[in-house]
Formats: sequence, structure tokens, C-alpha cells
Amino acid sequence: MKVYLNKDEMPTHYYNIVADMLNKPLPPLHPQTKQPVGPQDLAPLFPMELIKQEVSRDPYIEIPEPVREAYAIYRPSPLVRAERLEKALGTSAKIFYKYEGGSPSGSHKTNTAIAQAYYNKQEGVKKIVTETGAGQWGTALSFACAQFGLECEVFMVRGSYDQKPYRKSIMETFGARVHPSPSNLTQTGIAKLSQDPDSLGSLGIAISEAVEVAAQDEKTHYALGSVLNHVLLHQTVIGLEAQKQFEKINSYPDVVIAPLGGGSNFAGIAFPFVGEMLRGGRKIRAIAVEPASCPKLTRGVFGYDFGDSAGFTPLLPMYSLGHDFMPPGLHAGGLRYHGASALCSQLLKDELIEAVALQQLECFRAGLLFAKTEGILPAPEANHAIAQVIREAKAADEAGEQRTILFNLCGHGHFDLSAYDDFIQGKLQDHQLDEEQLKLSAAGVLTEL
Amino acid sequence: MKVYLNKDEMPTHYYNIVADMLNKPLPPLHPQTKQPVGPQDLAPLFPMELIKQEVSRDPYIEIPEPVREAYAIYRPSPLVRAERLEKALGTSAKIFYKYEGGSPSGSHKTNTAIAQAYYNKQEGVKKIVTETGAGQWGTALSFACAQFGLECEVFMVRGSYDQKPYRKSIMETFGARVHPSPSNLTQTGIAKLSQDPDSLGSLGIAISEAVEVAAQDEKTHYALGSVLNHVLLHQTVIGLEAQKQFEKINSYPDVVIAPLGGGSNFAGIAFPFVGEMLRGGRKIRAIAVEPASCPKLTRGVFGYDFGDSAGFTPLLPMYSLGHDFMPPGLHAGGLRYHGASALCSQLLKDELIEAVALQQLECFRAGLLFAKTEGILPAPEANHAIAQVIREAKAADEAGEQRTILFNLCGHGHFDLSAYDDFIQGKLQDHQLDEEQLKLSAAGVLTEL
Repeated sequence: MKVYLNKDEMPTHYYNIVADMLNKPLPPLHPQTKQPVGPQDLAPLFPMELIKQEVSRDPYIEIPEPVREAYAIYRPSPLVRAERLEKALGTSAKIFYKYEGGSPSGSHKTNTAIAQAYYNKQEGVKKIVTETGAGQWGTALSFACAQFGLECEVFMVRGSYDQKPYRKSIMETFGARVHPSPSNLTQTGIAKLSQDPDSLGSLGIAISEAVEVAAQDEKTHYALGSVLNHVLLHQTVIGLEAQKQFEKINSYPDVVIAPLGGGSNFAGIAFPFVGEMLRGGRKIRAIAVEPASCPKLTRGVFGYDFGDSAGFTPLLPMYSLGHDFMPPGLHAGGLRYHGASALCSQLLKDELIEAVALQQLECFRAGLLFAKTEGILPAPEANHAIAQVIREAKAADEAGEQRTILFNLCGHGHFDLSAYDDFIQGKLQDHQLDEEQLKLSAAGVLTEL
Repeated sequence: MKVYLNKDEMPTHYYNIVADMLNKPLPPLHPQTKQPVGPQDLAPLFPMELIKQEVSRDPYIEIPEPVREAYAIYRPSPLVRAERLEKALGTSAKIFYKYEGGSPSGSHKTNTAIAQAYYNKQEGVKKIVTETGAGQWGTALSFACAQFGLECEVFMVRGSYDQKPYRKSIMETFGARVHPSPSNLTQTGIAKLSQDPDSLGSLGIAISEAVEVAAQDEKTHYALGSVLNHVLLHQTVIGLEAQKQFEKINSYPDVVIAPLGGGSNFAGIAFPFVGEMLRGGRKIRAIAVEPASCPKLTRGVFGYDFGDSAGFTPLLPMYSLGHDFMPPGLHAGGLRYHGASALCSQLLKDELIEAVALQQLECFRAGLLFAKTEGILPAPEANHAIAQVIREAKAADEAGEQRTILFNLCGHGHFDLSAYDDFIQGKLQDHQLDEEQLKLSAAGVLTEL
């Protein structure tokens, strides 16, 4: 069963969960002064409308008409009941998913990319620079910039650039310029290359390169694909649509599940439901699923930490493994981030959401079963949600309850087939993190709040 | 604008255009006796239900319930108005497309794969063997076999096997066994490898290997992804859905366009509209688009030719370039076949459909424009349709007419990014075929009908 919405049923406003949070998130701090950052600190990088959204406490923020028009290319996304998966599991649970892989980038990232490109265009920006690791965010921003006539420049972690040439190609198809990072285009890159000419790069280095380029030119801005409040805000179109779709079939989820990398995927589907609960509406359980090899929510500490590994960004209040934490090799590249967004972190601290860490073999098994039954090859990130859905369905059956489960199928895995190949050939393994190393890495987090 | 259908609006019957053709297609001939082949000749390879469909003259053939259930995984497919493409072209034409890339294989091939797997399962078959070139058909059949608990074995042209490892991976993800062809598993393969151990293979060799394996075991059958009447029949769900969708918006196409490789893509979207016209209903123009480097419809001869390059299959009545025609390197692998299905060929001969051959650079330019405006990266095959759509829209504007154009966006290009990469880097070129070589190659076609 697929539940569609018409274009005129698309949400007209984003939902801002801050309005309904009893404990508001703590403010980000300036990396040097350790004082709360103000709009003027962020203005060289972001347009004022996004800075306003970052600190807004309004419950609803209107989605501009041109953004809604661009969303209509691929939204509303379908709400699908995974009947063949249910049958394969032999469960009496009802399993639904929102499918975000139909977007131009093949993932949910397009939802915020379009909004960010629009607000930048409105303020006269000519070019947006960003970093990308696995490539989904860079693809999304490339497409979004093409919609509003903006230039797009992407620093892509060299390891990915070399391993995933097709991700580079699709960004170029949408008109972006893509550089492997470290590059010789920035001071950061030149310094890194002089230390190690064969450096495979890191997201931290790529962020620093993008920020450096953006800061040099008034008409050039920077954009981030997760973590920040305004990014999570834009993703709430997913959950808002899902609420309308459930209303159409007179149903409502008991459990909402999504993977968590920086937090925008999870926030996108879960926050409208969590908000409903915070306002006294129907109770749900919202579960963020992280990889056992990058377990900030379940094994990290809550405190102030840098958003990047180099320590250039403001200090953010979050559950973190420490900004120099290096997760072991993991094919769900989007889940390798060391911290969780301030909003998700505060909600977890207040026990309004749950978190669970899963090993990757279980996740790939779940993804294969999903592909065979539902006909969509999920991104490895999405497999984490699917594995948890299967656990929840079994738990419901064992408890003799009939639960309705919703998860975010955040993207397809068409560019991740080398990961599936490795899994099928038995080359992947689970990871056990060392407690001592975790402590060492977390020592970088400022926990005296 | 997207027009959806509910599951209960899905077609319940396939449409068989043979019923409405004044000149019925000529029968296939036995390769040795040159007499029409009978059901007994085909029974070792195909289930009887498919053989019946191959010769049926009934206008409508019921789609079995389990096939419709499997279709519901990804069907009905949306009918989309390409408003942003229209705007970019500045045309007053209305451009619509059916998007078949949302299927589990990423192309329309799944429509016949599911039906073929079902009928084989019904007759007690345990395994289906097939060949695949670019990989779309092998992917579709792998998925379909997984739905009905059949084994699937795929002989993949070694050139593609080596160049497109992800296509192999996705077939394995759906549970298929994939061999590079030529292999050492068949007499055909062993003979080829003894001649040339480094052979890159061909579709002809891969077909021979698959047929050889299928013929050895009663419980093993063979399946083909295009050309045959029953394959075209199954694809008519595309056009039948489109008719219902146009009815919903009180519209109807003036022109229907699709790429033509073997013919099932084109037939799928066009035959229901052509049939309507044959029965005295609304007139449309149906245009098959082929690559200029494999121009069987526009430069081939009409006669009897083998379906494979080795000459093992029955002789089929078709427009052909000769069964040993070797097209120059072309990234639209699905359009490299030397002949066109008997049904499409007869309709073209009777001037009920049109054909046009386009060069690949124009097609890639059209595909890039489509990706940037509509957010879907098309398969290179689909780019041929898009390029022709753009020509039609411009022609309509020049003629001062407002035309409604429908085309089949038969698949996404997520596994074809090396082709886009080559195009963006200026490595692709157009091809001019030599008239003498075409004549030489076409000499293999038996034209005395």
C-alpha cells in the first residue's frame, strides 16, 4: 500500500521543535571566547534568514513558494506499507516507511539543500561552497544550486573521490565543480599536502577548505548538510507529510525510527511526532539508530565540542565521542560523524527520544531482506533503521502487541554497491570499540556545562 | 504535476495489439526447416502460457493476481508533467513522462520479468537462465525470481561484467548467480575461450550459453527481455496506466515517444495508444527513437533474420541490420540490438508508427538538461526519447501548434555515470555508418518474404 499526497497537500510550513521543548538547547559558543555566538559571527558564512531560523523559537516557519515549487519535483514522497517485508518476517506489526530515495540526490539531503540554496540566492549570493564525504550532500547541493542559478563548489574527501568516481560524476552532471580534498586551492589544503602528499583527506579537512574559500568572498557562502538547527528544521517536511498520510488511512505510528549521523535524517521524520507528544498529543517512541562503531548517543558524553575535527567551528552542545574520534572503516559513511545535533542531544538527555547502536552485519542482512522483499536497495545508512524495525517488530510479536512502526528510508544504495559486494563476499566485520580509547577521545569534550 | 493511480486502478489485463492489426505479424521460422515454429519447438525453453501469449490474437489477456501483487511493489508508476523542462525550453508544448526507473531494477524490464518468473513457477520450473548485456534485464529477472522462489542464473557479457561490477553486485543482492560470458560452464563458452581466452564476449554468445544451460534440464527454462511478442505484451501496463492517468486530467497525447532497442520499451508505452487509433479512436503519432549508430528501423531491411548473432534462434520477421552487425561503441547498451521486434517492424512497414535515428551527443545534451530541470538522471537509452521530445516541442512551437507529448522515461542512469563522465569530458563522439558496410551486414537478412 502506498499513500500519496497531492502537491496542494504539501506542508506549507516547517516545524520547529524548539518551540515545544521544555529544556531549550544550549547556545553554541565561540571557539575562542567561549561566549555564545551571535548572528554577526555567522554572517560571513550563512544568509541572515538561515541564521534567524537557527535561533528561532517560533513553532512554524513558512516554506517559501519557490522552495515548495522545487520540492514538487520529487515531493511529497510516498508513505509505503512494507507488506512484503511484514510477510517475510511473519510479524503482525504494521511497518511503514517514507521513501526519500526518489529525490534528485537519492537521499533526504535535497530537502535542506533546496532551502539553503534559495535563501542564499535571495540574499544575492553567487556561489555556495561545501564539503562532502560519501557524496550525498554534495549531490543534493549541486542539484539545488542548479535550480536557483547558483554556482556550486564541492570539496570531496579524497578517499571518497577516488573510490566513488560516480558520485563526482553526478555532481558534475548537475553542474558543480568538484575538488578532491586536500586540494592545493586553500591554505589548509596546501599545508596538509605538504605534510602528506598522498593524504586521503577527512571531512574535517574538507570543511576547513570549504569554509576558507567561502570566507574569502562576500558573494560566496558556505552550507552544511546536517547538525545545525536550520538543517533539521528543513527536514521536518518528511514527518509533516507522514502525519498527513497517516491521517488519510486513519492510522498513527507507535514507534518512529531513523538512522542518526548528524541528526537531520532522524529529526526530519521524528520531530513532528515528538512535537505532537510534547504538546500533549499521542505518545510515540522515537528511536535514533547509530552504528556500534560510532556510538555517540549510547557511549558518548554530553558537553560542548567542536563541529569539525580541526576545531574551527563554534562549540556545539551535544553528545560527542570527541572531535578527533576516528571511527573504524564503516560503509555507512553518513553515520561516521563524531557528534549529534544539539536538538537531538537535548531531547535524548531529557529522555524524550531513545537511542540504540547496531553492528553493521545485522544492518546489511536487514538491508538485503528489504531489497528482496520491497524492491528498493537501501543506502547502508538506512539499513540501520531497517534492522531496528525488525527488532521492534519481533519484540511486539513477543509481547503480543500490534505495533505500527514508521521508519525513514532515507536513500537508495545505488552508489553503495561495493559495500553490498563486500558484505555478500564475507569481507565485512563487526567492530568492538575499546573502552579506554573512547575515554581518551571523549576527553576533548567540554563537559562542565 | 504528478498523476498517481491507486493500486485498485492498476490494469487487470495486458493489451495485445495483434488483435487490432490489419496485417498480422509473420510467424517465426525454424532455423533449419524454415517452416513456422510450433509450440513444441519452444516448449524446452518457455512455459506453455508464454508460448500461448506469443501467438495469441485475443485483445486482452488477464494479468494473474500474484503478478499484480508483485507489480504493486512499484506500480502504478507516476505520470509526470515535466513543467521545469517545458520552462527551460520555453515551449508551449505539454510534456509528460511515465517514470519506470522507480522499479526494483531501475528500468521497465521488471514488468515482463515478474510475469515470466510467475508463469515459469506455475509450471514447476525451478530455475531461469538468461543473458544480460548492460545489466538491466539481468537485474530485473534476478528480482523477479526472488519474488517467486526461483533460482536465477545470468550470463553477463564479460565486457560489461568487468566494466560494471555494480550491476553484477545488484543481481547478487537479489540472489542471482552471475557468470561472465564466455564462461567455461558451457560448450559454447569453452569453444569461444579456446579461440580467444581474453574474449570480451557478446550478447550473441551469452544468449547461446544461457540457452545451452536451459536446454539441459527439464526444470530449467530460459527467458528473454525484449523482442518477443509476449515480452512486448507485458510491457503494455505502462501505456494502459498512462491512458487512465490522462483520463484523470482530461488530456490525451498527440505524440508518444520511446527509445527502441528490441521494441518492448516502445511497445509498452505506445501500443495501447496505437491500438486505440486502430480501433477508430483518437489519432496519435507514435515515434520510435533509435541510435544513429544502430539504425535498424531507418536504415535496415525488412525480412527474416536470426534473433542472435550465432544463428541458433528461430528466424524472426523484422527490420534488421543483419544478425552479425556490430554497432560502434555506444553507451546506450540497451539500444545496440541488430533487429526490431516483429510487431514493431510490421507496424512500421504499415506506416502506423514512425521511426527516427539520433546521434548520441544530442541525446546526452538532452539528458543533462532533463537531469538539471526534472531531477532525474535518465538512462542513456531514455535520453534518445528526451532528445526527440525536445525536437517535437520545438517543431510544435514553430508550427504554432500546442502539442501534448508523452514519452517513456524507461530507467534511471545511476549505473551509467561513466558514460555521463565521458560526455562531460568531451570523450564521446557521433558515429557515421558506412553505407557499404551496412549493405554487407544486411546481406544476411532473408528478404524474400
